[in-house]
Amino acid sequence: MQQKLEAFMDEQKSAVQQEIYDRLRGLDIPERLKASMVYSVEAGGKRLRPILLLAACQAYSDDTEVALTPAVALEMIHTYSLIHDDLPAMDDDDLRRGMPTNHKKYDEATAILAGDALLTYSFELIANDSGLTDQQKIRVIQSLSEVSGPKGMVAGQILDMKAEQRDITLGELETIHTHKTGELLRFAVATGAYLGGASNEQIAHLETFANYLGLIFQIQDDILDVTGDPDKIGKPVGSDKANNKNTYPKLLGLDEAIEKKSRYVQQAKEALHRADAASSYLAMLADYFSARDY
Amino acid sequence: MQQKLEAFMDEQKSAVQQEIYDRLRGLDIPERLKASMVYSVEAGGKRLRPILLLAACQAYSDDTEVALTPAVALEMIHTYSLIHDDLPAMDDDDLRRGMPTNHKKYDEATAILAGDALLTYSFELIANDSGLTDQQKIRVIQSLSEVSGPKGMVAGQILDMKAEQRDITLGELETIHTHKTGELLRFAVATGAYLGGASNEQIAHLETFANYLGLIFQIQDDILDVTGDPDKIGKPVGSDKANNKNTYPKLLGLDEAIEKKSRYVQQAKEALHRADAASSYLAMLADYFSARDY
Repeated sequence: MQQKLEAFMDEQKSAVQQEIYDRLRGLDIPERLKASMVYSVEAGGKRLRPILLLAACQAYSDDTEVALTPAVALEMIHTYSLIHDDLPAMDDDDLRRGMPTNHKKYDEATAILAGDALLTYSFELIANDSGLTDQQKIRVIQSLSEVSGPKGMVAGQILDMKAEQRDITLGELETIHTHKTGELLRFAVATGAYLGGASNEQIAHLETFANYLGLIFQIQDDILDVTGDPDKIGKPVGSDKANNKNTYPKLLGLDEAIEKKSRYVQQAKEALHRADAASSYLAMLADYFSARDY
Repeated sequence: MQQKLEAFMDEQKSAVQQEIYDRLRGLDIPERLKASMVYSVEAGGKRLRPILLLAACQAYSDDTEVALTPAVALEMIHTYSLIHDDLPAMDDDDLRRGMPTNHKKYDEATAILAGDALLTYSFELIANDSGLTDQQKIRVIQSLSEVSGPKGMVAGQILDMKAEQRDITLGELETIHTHKTGELLRFAVATGAYLGGASNEQIAHLETFANYLGLIFQIQDDILDVTGDPDKIGKPVGSDKANNKNTYPKLLGLDEAIEKKSRYVQQAKEALHRADAASSYLAMLADYFSARDY
């Protein structure tokens, strides 16, 4: 099971990275702008969002080719958000995945513009994708703009910045995570399923699945900061506590956080069952998100 | 003639501002994010870009209603670019149109996010506009993403920043202006005409018109910095020279700059004639762009 999932993830990751490479390297734009965009998009990462999108497509169709451009656009939006979040005025991070952040490698102005360019380019890629019908393009653009804009990811970032200055409730913590990371996961799953031919009812159940998946991901992130292996997670353990960050273990205690995660995995799988996707890679991905040690 | 143009501009400006108001005020998003977006979009300005879009539509059709959402989206993209350009890492401006810039009124992080939100929201507005067909939406989104992204406006901003550190040729100066401001004007004119029902050939001539219009706008901007009335232009004269900015009067001398502007007005009108729009408001707007004293 584990091996089968890993083979699937490797295959999809390769497809996504090749497509990203093709889409960026061919751009005829000022050299410094391109280098800065390429630097962050190719800096690696697990490509979980595009893989999730392709897995959701694969749950309903053998042809995942149709979903490749939306998957790449999603990864570019995710990357733009990381570049802007790392800026001195925001989280002020010097390193990401062990490498200098964009504004450290280049400069602040270039990093701001590289983020702006990736955000805009992601819509351009979808609008110009010859594999999608106009109707499909519009539905994908509607969703992507909604989940990444002022009602979605940007709202999450504003709420997160405000929350850093005080203690918050579990409800507030989940609202922040839902906006900041959950919305993009919801887009991934719903868009992949839509392009794979899922019904609106199936998509609705998958959105419930994605909500749980986002929370599972976040709880595990918080748990790893307490119990993880620094070599594997790529940062020292205990940094959330040192920064007085609002986390599940802080609000619930470690045992109750682990318990909550298990309940969410159960509920995620029930939603998958209702979406007729219980035996898809999505089910394995829920376990993977819950058990990952990096 | 002048009076007729002013009445038209006032009418379109009101329509655009009402639509902006409706689209922003109703947003259910975090208060600080909304306030910051509203602040910059409603800070005024001449709304030249949306007016140009609506005038291009009106040159071919009596119904300009269809073009209102794209006009508003364009103004939001323009506003996002001003917010990001004003940031300390970019032009580091404290004032715009006599009022504190977004990051001065709020803070840098909020200004970055307000810009990101306006950019994303502009695509959402077009994708959800019930007055456009899917085909129209896709064509508008294709153009808007291209002119505002890494090949267009963002490229112009990177080139402009690099040029500030050295002397450049007239050719380089025009490349910067074409990307930084010309592309959005080209979008305005081409999109308005397209939605008004113009043929592809007419649109091609209008794009030539828009290129000249952008250069006319910029030359007049540079001339006003030498000969303008500080009360009317809202900033001291001579600031370009003091900042050693690359301008037309600097590269050509004032007389030759004025001469060049006149030639461009002539060429703009010839392009309009070929686009069968010689008697539209667009012709008056070319004179207006050339003769404005603020």
